[in-house]
Amino acid sequence: MSFPTDLEIAESANILPIKKIAEKLGIIEDDLEYYGKYKAKIPLQYIDEEKSKKAKLILVTAINPTPAGEGKTTVSVGLNDGLKKIGKKSIAVLREPSLGPVFGVKGGAAGGGYAQLIPMVDINLHFTGDFSAIEKANNLLSAMIDNNLQNKKFSLNIDPRTIVWKRVMDMNDRSLRNIVIGLGGLNNGITREEGFNITPASEVMAILCLSKDFEDLKNRLGNIFVGYTFDKKPIFARDLKAENAMAILLKDAIKPNLVQTLEGNPAILHGGPFANIAQGTNTIIATKMGLSLADYVVTEAGFGADLGAEKFLHIKCHYGKMKPDAYVIVATIRALRYQGGAKKGEYENPNLPFLKNGFGNLAKHIENGFKFGFKPIVAINHFATDSLEEINYIIDECEKLGVKAILADEFTKGGAGMTELAEEVVRCAEFYGNDFKPLYQVEDSVEHKIDTIAKEVYGAESVVYSQKAKNQLKTIYDLGFDKVPICMAKTQKSLTDDETKLGRPTNFKITVREFEFAAGAGFIIPILGDIMRMPGLPNIPAAEGMFIDKDGKITGLS
Amino acid sequence: MSFPTDLEIAESANILPIKKIAEKLGIIEDDLEYYGKYKAKIPLQYIDEEKSKKAKLILVTAINPTPAGEGKTTVSVGLNDGLKKIGKKSIAVLREPSLGPVFGVKGGAAGGGYAQLIPMVDINLHFTGDFSAIEKANNLLSAMIDNNLQNKKFSLNIDPRTIVWKRVMDMNDRSLRNIVIGLGGLNNGITREEGFNITPASEVMAILCLSKDFEDLKNRLGNIFVGYTFDKKPIFARDLKAENAMAILLKDAIKPNLVQTLEGNPAILHGGPFANIAQGTNTIIATKMGLSLADYVVTEAGFGADLGAEKFLHIKCHYGKMKPDAYVIVATIRALRYQGGAKKGEYENPNLPFLKNGFGNLAKHIENGFKFGFKPIVAINHFATDSLEEINYIIDECEKLGVKAILADEFTKGGAGMTELAEEVVRCAEFYGNDFKPLYQVEDSVEHKIDTIAKEVYGAESVVYSQKAKNQLKTIYDLGFDKVPICMAKTQKSLTDDETKLGRPTNFKITVREFEFAAGAGFIIPILGDIMRMPGLPNIPAAEGMFIDKDGKITGLS
Repeated sequence: MSFPTDLEIAESANILPIKKIAEKLGIIEDDLEYYGKYKAKIPLQYIDEEKSKKAKLILVTAINPTPAGEGKTTVSVGLNDGLKKIGKKSIAVLREPSLGPVFGVKGGAAGGGYAQLIPMVDINLHFTGDFSAIEKANNLLSAMIDNNLQNKKFSLNIDPRTIVWKRVMDMNDRSLRNIVIGLGGLNNGITREEGFNITPASEVMAILCLSKDFEDLKNRLGNIFVGYTFDKKPIFARDLKAENAMAILLKDAIKPNLVQTLEGNPAILHGGPFANIAQGTNTIIATKMGLSLADYVVTEAGFGADLGAEKFLHIKCHYGKMKPDAYVIVATIRALRYQGGAKKGEYENPNLPFLKNGFGNLAKHIENGFKFGFKPIVAINHFATDSLEEINYIIDECEKLGVKAILADEFTKGGAGMTELAEEVVRCAEFYGNDFKPLYQVEDSVEHKIDTIAKEVYGAESVVYSQKAKNQLKTIYDLGFDKVPICMAKTQKSLTDDETKLGRPTNFKITVREFEFAAGAGFIIPILGDIMRMPGLPNIPAAEGMFIDKDGKITGLS
Repeated sequence: MSFPTDLEIAESANILPIKKIAEKLGIIEDDLEYYGKYKAKIPLQYIDEEKSKKAKLILVTAINPTPAGEGKTTVSVGLNDGLKKIGKKSIAVLREPSLGPVFGVKGGAAGGGYAQLIPMVDINLHFTGDFSAIEKANNLLSAMIDNNLQNKKFSLNIDPRTIVWKRVMDMNDRSLRNIVIGLGGLNNGITREEGFNITPASEVMAILCLSKDFEDLKNRLGNIFVGYTFDKKPIFARDLKAENAMAILLKDAIKPNLVQTLEGNPAILHGGPFANIAQGTNTIIATKMGLSLADYVVTEAGFGADLGAEKFLHIKCHYGKMKPDAYVIVATIRALRYQGGAKKGEYENPNLPFLKNGFGNLAKHIENGFKFGFKPIVAINHFATDSLEEINYIIDECEKLGVKAILADEFTKGGAGMTELAEEVVRCAEFYGNDFKPLYQVEDSVEHKIDTIAKEVYGAESVVYSQKAKNQLKTIYDLGFDKVPICMAKTQKSLTDDETKLGRPTNFKITVREFEFAAGAGFIIPILGDIMRMPGLPNIPAAEGMFIDKDGKITGLS
């Protein structure tokens, strides 16, 4: 008998009514806003600033992943279940999946095996509508911009060539990256260049993720930079009187969503994925909610630590005035083989030479953890194809670096396979983790901040700017938007901006191709190499292999 | 003291938990899928085909409206409350609002005054996510089409110049009507012309509205026509293996949504508005659900009877194998003044000459009701500015046409102002309404069907086809898609295709500018005059006047 699919495991779970999960957290049923029986929104009054300062925050990050991902969410869910097993009151606070990857190549983002979030299908589809609300708020501003261009009577005199605000869609759709809108004559808008990003890359998503309350959200929406007038005055969303209507569209999206793990432990999902092209962490509000409701909060930062953790620590910790108490790096042996040069068909099988060759990638991420002031813990997300020899190699090498590597067996055993890791996390959170320090200060120059990330985190020699990037950088300074954190857009597959450079590359430069910037959310986005903020579908999209029968039973969704 | 706003009335209502409303219909709480405390989805097993054949269906339609609408939804909600007042078990089964008009000019679509659906704000915003699901299903197919164009390995050889499938967005956004996508070179798709329609005009919305069950939905999705290959073979959604993933996105959207009126009576909202550019009625599933759960179902067909009712009778009744038992035409005296030539600033005040001049519009809609085999009832949706003289004129003139006109006072009095209309509706449903006959047969030629609607319903002399329309008509015949109903896209403001021709125009032609067709939903869309299937925002969008405070209290949403 083969191991069941994620969906089969999720569907056969003994799912509890969400009010039972809420009870465990001390949330009164009447305060819940249900979305079906197994999902609910939690009102913001459950955030307790004092309590939230005492709880421990555990950040789960990873090495540079294979295309299938390293199982950060799976480890996070399993770790949450493991903490429960050792008697701790914990909660997982994670990100909501995007529809793009669900129908593209990666599939869902609700964990896997016996460490999953349920209801899995709902979580991977529309969930509680947050992404849709973000998309609508983003695109309402776009419609109001183009309506103002068309409208001679109340014109703000916006120069259409200067508009930087893009529309978004939660879809992998490369054909929308570069488009021309407003064709068709007098009644059909002003012709201009435009493009769609994927919804998680929307500044509205970032604003939702970085706002401390509803008022802050509305103010940040008003601060969104749109473009210039013909006489070079900056135009913001508030000049278009858009921020209230946008905030109205987000009135429910701002509330965190409660779900459960397969083992009936609580989990909050709220805010955006895509740490390669966006800030890629869950909302500050959700993390604070978790810290208010439990003693341990397990959270994750997307893709490798060079993207997710770096942004978590420099952007989210800055705006949320928070810091992690423990720092877990997820590695799989198959990904280390891949980092060591193994190709598809090779990296799935035991191979110590490839592993040794790829270990540098993990070593670099461990070193980076120390730089930020943590004592990292390595979680080896266990696969059946891992050889004992390979496991022992990692444990030994990590020990040489002063780090404990622990086998994480959540995929086949759930929380029971995670108690050792849970114990170590608790120990680290108690004894270390008070030395967190960012690698740059927001007051530093933009170039210095980018340089710091490139050299300290990626290991680059230097940073190159295209002419376009240089021009955009001047705009950023002119507008006075430079004193904010950096949010790199970079491939997740490599420590460099070139996805083919694996392991621990040295002697490389990174190239800032162009800049976007988020004046409302409060960060600058250098776009490196050829990364796109709107993904494409693969040759055979996952959508093609999905099936639903007349009773609603689904197969092929993973 | 001024009369409170719709929002003030809605917010001060004594709203009941939705399970209390469900109880009144015999729905077990455990079967409900909550969306917050006051909205829920009803599972399809509550449809009872036998029971649904015995209940009475009341169709509420209207004369050609002013830009603000004639209050069909308000009258429908009030009539439902009125039926309850006279001791009948009734339910309103209506349409979900679109976000486009909410932020544009018309505002929400949840009734008004003391005849409203609540929770009003939620209904007018994302509601239960149905529109978003429809939009995603539509745009997933688009992404799969463009991905196939890009994909040389698994190419279907689609000729991009022949693609008729458009993307959609639930927004008033004229700049997206005519666009060019796929710019930017090799990695960014194939360049081609494209356009967005508003989401309610999506064929996916029409398929949701016209499907009898989930299997039917999936089959219809597979039948969507996309375009041709370079060697002229037709390509359907099923050729792209898209229909299962699309159906998965719609697994919850297919379930009708339960809400309540201000008086605590049940209402189902499900499916699309926009009877000018789409089929514009609620779903067959929702109507059958209503007929299964109550003895009287009040439903509406959008805009004037020339659009909404005509489509309800020729499209929905055809696919749903149903027929109305009573036919109510809503008229306001202000709209009849407007139809008689009164301008803004004039039509708000008593003026018998304008009213007399505009009465022909109502007379034509009454005659059309008789043509379909009904005995129409006229509901005069009462405004404070109606003079007694004007009211009596309408009552007398209607009597001459063999029709009873009754004052509908739901706006200020709720159900208590609707008992006389409710009594008459019950009487008509008992004694008349068994003579319904469509004006054309689906087997007729396309030209004959269009001719019939133009001449019999609009009162036109003849139909003109543009060269583009003639070419597209040839395609429709070539593909064998001609044996389906017609779904006109036409201005709602006039019986003609020219919004400036008011009253009861005669001696006019209508022009079919172009055709779209919906092979999955099963209808042909002749586009008349200069109507657009993507609306624009007005000079001052409603969005600009909205406000939300830090506690989430909203003003300016109507």
